Parts: sequence; structure tokens; C-alpha cells
Amino acid sequence: MAADKIETIVSLSKRRGFVYPCSEIYGGSRAAWDYGPLGVELKENIKRQWWRAMVVGREDVVGIDSSVILAPEVWEASGHVQTFSDPLTECTACHKRHRADHLIEAYEAKHHGRAPENGLADVNCPNCGTKGQFTEPKQFSGMLQTHLGPTQDTGSAAYLRPETAQGIFTNFAQVQQTSRKKPPFGIAQMGKSFRNEITPGNFIFRTREFEQMEMEFFVKPGEDEQWQEYWMEQRWNWYLDLGINPENIRWYEHPAEKLSHYSKRTADIEYRFNFGGSEFSELEGVANRTDFDLKAHSKASGHDLVYFDQEANERWTPYVIEPAAGVNRAMLAFMLDAYREDEAPNAKGVMEKRVVMGLDPRLAPVKVAVLPLSRNPQLSPKAKGLAADLRKNWNIEFDDAGAIGRRYRRQDEIGTPFCVTVDFDTLDDNAVTVRERDTMKQERVSLDMIQEYLAVRLLGC
Amino acid sequence: MAADKIETIVSLSKRRGFVYPCSEIYGGSRAAWDYGPLGVELKENIKRQWWRAMVVGREDVVGIDSSVILAPEVWEASGHVQTFSDPLTECTACHKRHRADHLIEAYEAKHHGRAPENGLADVNCPNCGTKGQFTEPKQFSGMLQTHLGPTQDTGSAAYLRPETAQGIFTNFAQVQQTSRKKPPFGIAQMGKSFRNEITPGNFIFRTREFEQMEMEFFVKPGEDEQWQEYWMEQRWNWYLDLGINPENIRWYEHPAEKLSHYSKRTADIEYRFNFGGSEFSELEGVANRTDFDLKAHSKASGHDLVYFDQEANERWTPYVIEPAAGVNRAMLAFMLDAYREDEAPNAKGVMEKRVVMGLDPRLAPVKVAVLPLSRNPQLSPKAKGLAADLRKNWNIEFDDAGAIGRRYRRQDEIGTPFCVTVDFDTLDDNAVTVRERDTMKQERVSLDMIQEYLAVRLLGC
Repeated sequence: MAADKIETIVSLSKRRGFVYPCSEIYGGSRAAWDYGPLGVELKENIKRQWWRAMVVGREDVVGIDSSVILAPEVWEASGHVQTFSDPLTECTACHKRHRADHLIEAYEAKHHGRAPENGLADVNCPNCGTKGQFTEPKQFSGMLQTHLGPTQDTGSAAYLRPETAQGIFTNFAQVQQTSRKKPPFGIAQMGKSFRNEITPGNFIFRTREFEQMEMEFFVKPGEDEQWQEYWMEQRWNWYLDLGINPENIRWYEHPAEKLSHYSKRTADIEYRFNFGGSEFSELEGVANRTDFDLKAHSKASGHDLVYFDQEANERWTPYVIEPAAGVNRAMLAFMLDAYREDEAPNAKGVMEKRVVMGLDPRLAPVKVAVLPLSRNPQLSPKAKGLAADLRKNWNIEFDDAGAIGRRYRRQDEIGTPFCVTVDFDTLDDNAVTVRERDTMKQERVSLDMIQEYLAVRLLGC
Repeated sequence: MAADKIETIVSLSKRRGFVYPCSEIYGGSRAAWDYGPLGVELKENIKRQWWRAMVVGREDVVGIDSSVILAPEVWEASGHVQTFSDPLTECTACHKRHRADHLIEAYEAKHHGRAPENGLADVNCPNCGTKGQFTEPKQFSGMLQTHLGPTQDTGSAAYLRPETAQGIFTNFAQVQQTSRKKPPFGIAQMGKSFRNEITPGNFIFRTREFEQMEMEFFVKPGEDEQWQEYWMEQRWNWYLDLGINPENIRWYEHPAEKLSHYSKRTADIEYRFNFGGSEFSELEGVANRTDFDLKAHSKASGHDLVYFDQEANERWTPYVIEPAAGVNRAMLAFMLDAYREDEAPNAKGVMEKRVVMGLDPRLAPVKVAVLPLSRNPQLSPKAKGLAADLRKNWNIEFDDAGAIGRRYRRQDEIGTPFCVTVDFDTLDDNAVTVRERDTMKQERVSLDMIQEYLAVRLLGC
């Protein structure tokens, strides 16, 4: 199923309201996707768990939310204007544009890591199959530009941020002072970034706009290597804690010659996305950005972004360890990892295929489904009342359409941890049947106890 | 204090880490602001409360999250390309640019609603004071443009959304089908929008990028007027429920001749911001957008965005009621409304001025501060342990620097509802002192009960 799994998720996403193609009524685009009612809940749950683990749950990290459009000087100083570009090439046979580095990477993935001896001359065009008919690669900027002010002539050019990190570096001194933190401490941010992707694709994996969860952890120079190890372990465990199968992730160390201009060491957590041509792809990077950014902004702005260490009576520019995760990639990984097919008995006791999105309850978009056994003037109001009560605490679905078995399947497929059925016995015993998604075990719970019963099982949601 | 209150909030915001000028090390800008550690928590709490009230807490509303950059056709069909522009004029004396409509509005506010008889000829330049030396106003687009693709020539122009609503309309049919909702039902979205503001200002009130909380509620034509009344009441009550003083908000009905091109009726909730020249300014609009948008997209896309009413066997295009709120404006209103100065006894029992941000606990950025009575090898670890426990549930501050009275003041100023003090008695009685922000009453609570004690008082946070 491996290779088809992405297609299965794309199809399920559209059918059930996780992800739709952006502006589909106008033809859609593979560069942008919109998140439907279930997708927005899943995506926000991922962000909430990250914020809890990285900010609220820690004494040594605070959050910020900086602007998408920063002063243009920021991107000059950070090196993005000069170096944040990609090599673009065109197949002269079919005129399709490609990123030259992606062509080489795909070749390597197919040939057990072996690079093409003659560069692009050995590579077939992924679009038309023609071999080696590529134009000389040209650099083009990965940043999207815009124009501020009334006219193109008099206004000023500006960039949409390609990473949230620079908004952290420019605010470093303010945040450090107002929050009275001393290194080692971190500043975290979640938000949208934009990149001029020429070859977007693989569903929500590579898109023009995407959400990042980045944290810059400021440490004393010399302590940076051990802190990178620390954050690598923390981030690895975050995925495992939220249910990712450890066999589906691995570390990838960037070779020295491929490191970004600011990096001393970068290690990626890769997930087994199984995109055509490559088994593993980047999920999150943990980079040692050294003191590059703070020093660059100190120099360019004239503000001394150093830390004065009172105890040692020393001034130094902190080194920075950056765990940078993609929200959308994480969402795709959690969906792929949680998707499974097993069997369950139908109404006649015959085993049938069952699709289950086995998401951790903290991530599941709907926490509880309330299902009256049938559409009935006694059961429906009772069930609606219960749904309204539960809705004060959690995202709830109410469904009274069709056979109960079919409604269970609908909930299994979107990962709802608990289904609560209101039946005719409820009218006598004031209790309901709670069915658990994974085991399909059913338990009778008094309506007086149902909030507490669920609260214990949905702790941390 | 009225007029200075904004300045007080701007100053407090910067000093305590609510809001900083964007890219301040490069000179800052009054068109963009960054949110610090306290600001990001307050802002996210406002969004969470809106989502709970408008989406999770309701059976008849679902959420989505669409892209910032939509297909360009969307903005043609919606009328934004043609009509979303502002009249720009320049003072020929000082060459400062102004929005002509803002100049007129400011004149009217100063002259008890009376319009200038001779138009701009009666108006003084707010920059240099010269009277009536303005160029003929020219329309300029309020949308920010960007360019997708490798070069300006071969790529395609696109817009950054000036409102989130269009992403809801383009997804209407998908969402309606996948979530199986029937009108009356709503689709809600929170997210950033961008406008090419020539005259940004008033702190975070009018900025180039801002966050919206919009909900489009689809109803049967003919039921639109009563649903607008319903949503006006809901939205009014939302602000009151979260603590806004009803004397500081009022309704403003848009006169027929000033309605947007899509609107049958729009009523704004205005807040008493007391900006120079105008006492009340828009906080949120509740608009009847009729069937304008769905019909426009039906026509432009060729997709029939109608609803088939099975019971009545009729097809109709829903009317839309739209409550559209600004996150940043709401945050400013909540801060202004919550700010007060009263008196409290200092360590010697003498009454001193106290600044209190009386935010509803659901909005307060820090829920509990844990304060050891003094920095002490016995108290500090105990207090740190407690802080770590509480941090699993809420955003917590730990502070052991300086006199306890001063630390209380620091928490009052940022709106922390509870301070928990660990003192020497704690080592004997295993209890702590809980101080409530508004009453300053202190209560002794056993450490075994502290989580439960706070949970009851922080319900809904």
C-alpha cells in the first residue's frame, strides 16, 4: 500500500473535509491547499501541543508573534537576499521548469545515493522523459516580493518572510529584557511563511505558503553542541509521544558542504513519506545557527545584540540552536502514520474492512461523537442535549443519519476516540454506551458520570 | 486620562512585552507591530474564546483555514480588483499623503458630524496645518500584490487577501457537502489579512497586516434580516461576557449610501478608543452580504453555488450574515477596558498607586504567578516544583526577584488573576497563600488542593 497511501490520504482528506485544493472552483493549484472543518481542528491541535511542549510547559522558553512583512534590511542582513535562491532549469524538450537540485536528489534516491556522473546530462526529465536536455541552471529568489505604498514607482519593495526565525532575532534584545530571561533560554514562534516554490507538490508537503513552528534557543558559546543534542532528543521524543511509529522516522545529518550559510551543524528528522522516488523526506530540522544571525543584525542595525553575563562579568553573543518544524508536514506525517485498515464485524456479525485514523486523542479533530441509536422523538432530544453539554469542553459531532454501524465507521475514519450512543435503555437507566475507537470495546456509563469519564480519558486535549 | 490612555497602554505594552514596534532595531514602523511573550498569549486567548463561542460551542458552525494567496480570479469575481481602493490625496505644501475619506471623517468628528461645505478645501493638513492645498484624490488599490514564479515577466501576479471571507465563499460547496450541514449554518475562519494602508496608525488599530475572525452564516433568503439581528446580539454579548464595559461600546449603522458594494445592511460595534479626533471607532462589523458573493463566484467560475432544499424541493442561493471582528482591535479594546489605577497598601501600610489590568481570567496572559517569599534554598525549590506542576495546565510565571509587594504589582499590571506565595509556614503546614488580583484578598490553601482550587477559578481558560 505504501506508494498509494498518499493518494488514499488525499482522497480521504477531500471527501471528509480535512484538506481541499485551494480555489478549486477556479481550477485549483498544487501550490496551495485549504483546510476544511476537520483539517483546521487537527492542524490547530498539533500547534497547541507544540506550544504546550515548547513554551507554556517550560520555564526557559517564551513565545512571540512577529510580522510577516519585516523591514527589508532584515533580509539583507540575514543573507536571504543574497543566498536564499534556488537553481532553476528548463527541459528544452517539453519546456517544463525544474529545480536542478531536486532533479539531482531524485536521481540519487533512485540510484542508492550515487550522484549522476555527468550532472544533469544523466538525468531524465520527470515530465517528458527526455534525457539531459536541460538549460544551464539559473538562480532565482525563493522570497515572494510585494510593494508597499500607493504606486510601484513611489512605494517600496518588501518581502514576505520565508522563515519566522528572523522576527525572533530582531526582537531578541526586547524579549530578553522584558521577560528577564538569561541564556540558556528560548523564544518560540508559530506562523505562516511564504516561498516562491517553482516545483511545489506532494500534497501539503511543499506549498507556496506554509506554517512553521520555530524556536531559537540562545546559549553560551561553547555550550551549543550539547544543547543541540538536548533539543534533538526533545524533538524526537515529541513525535513519539504523539504517536509516531519510531520505525517511520530517522535522523539525517547534513553533510558539511551542504550546510546553510549560517549553520555549523544541522540534523533533520525525516519521515517515511514514501513520495515517488524518495522514501524519507524532511519533517523538522534542528540547526546550530551559531551567532551568525545576531552578529549580522548587530552589524547591520548598529544595535549591539549581545548578552551581558553579570556573574562572569562578560559580554558575549549567544549561539543559537533552532528546532524548526513544519505544521503542514507534521499533519501529513501524523495522518499517514495513524491511517490503518483492519476488520470489524458488521450488523450481521460478518467481518468487514474498517478504516481507522488512529490519531492520539490530543490530536483527533473530533473528540466525541454523540449518536442516538435511531432518529426518534425521544432519543434525539436526549442525545442533542448531551452533545450540547459536552460541546462546552470538546469538539463534538452529532450524527443521527443511517445505521449505527455505518456511523461508527465514519467516526473511525476521522479518528474520533469515543462514540457515545444514546439508546432506548437510556430512557430507563440514564446511562449511555461509550465505544472506544481502537479496541471497539463498549462500556455502559451513567450520564451523571459521563463528563468525568471522558475528562479522564481526554486529559491534555 | 482618556486621551493619554492609549499612550499609557503603548508604553506598558513595550515595557512588559505585550507589543513591540516591528523591526525596531532597523527604525521600526507604525504600519506593523510584533507581539511579545505576554501579547501573544493574550491574542491567542482572544482567538481561542472566539473559536469556542463561534465554532466548537455550536452545532451549526464549522471552521476552515484557507490560503492567503487565492487564485486571482477570486478577487476579480468578488469585486475587490474593481472597487477595493481608497482615494489618495497629497498635501502640496508638505507632500504628505493622506486618505481623502479619512481627512473628511476627521473633519466631521471635530465639527459634530458636519461635513466640510467645500470638501477638502476646508480641511487642514494634519501634518503641516496648511488649509485645503490637496491634490485631486486618486484611487489606489488596497490590496497588496505579489508575483509568483521565477521572473516578473513569466510569472503571474497575485494578491494577498484583504479579507478572509472569500476563502470561505470559494469553499462553500465543499464544506457544505463534507460537513453535511444545511442552512442556516456557518463557516468560520481566523487568519491574517493584508492591506496596503497608506495611513496606518493608532498603534495596533490600523496596520498593514492584521488578524481577522470572520464567520459567514448562510441562511434562506427572506430569513436574513432576523438572522442579522440574532448575530448582532450574539456578538454584542460576547464582548460583555469577556468583560467589556457596556458603556464603552455602541452600535453604528452604516448609512445606505456608504454601504459596501455587497451589503444590504451593516452595523458596527464601536469601542470608545478615544483616538485623537474621534471618540468611537470600529471594533467589529456585522454585515448582510446578501447572495452577492456566492452569485458572483457562481457566475465567474461556472460552478453553481446554490443549495438544494430537499424538503421544499427548491434551489436557492443562500444569503450571508457576516460577523467580522479584528483580533488586534479586540486586543487593544480589552487592554484599554481592563486598565485601571487604584490604591493598595505598601509594606509599611501606606496607600500607594496600583496599576491593574483587570482582564477576564480567560484572557489573562499569565494565569498564576508563583512567588517564593524570598530567594532561599528551602523556599525556592519548593516554589519551583509547584510552578512546574501548575505549568502542565496553565501559563505560569515564576518570580523570586525583589520585595513581595513589588512582585504583586508586576503581576497586577499584566492582569495575572492569582499569585501563589510559598513562605516559611509552607515548610510546616504544606500550604500556600493565594492572593486574588482584584480584591487582593488572601487565602491559605493546602498544596494538596491547589490544583483543584485554581481549576475551579480558572474554568474555561
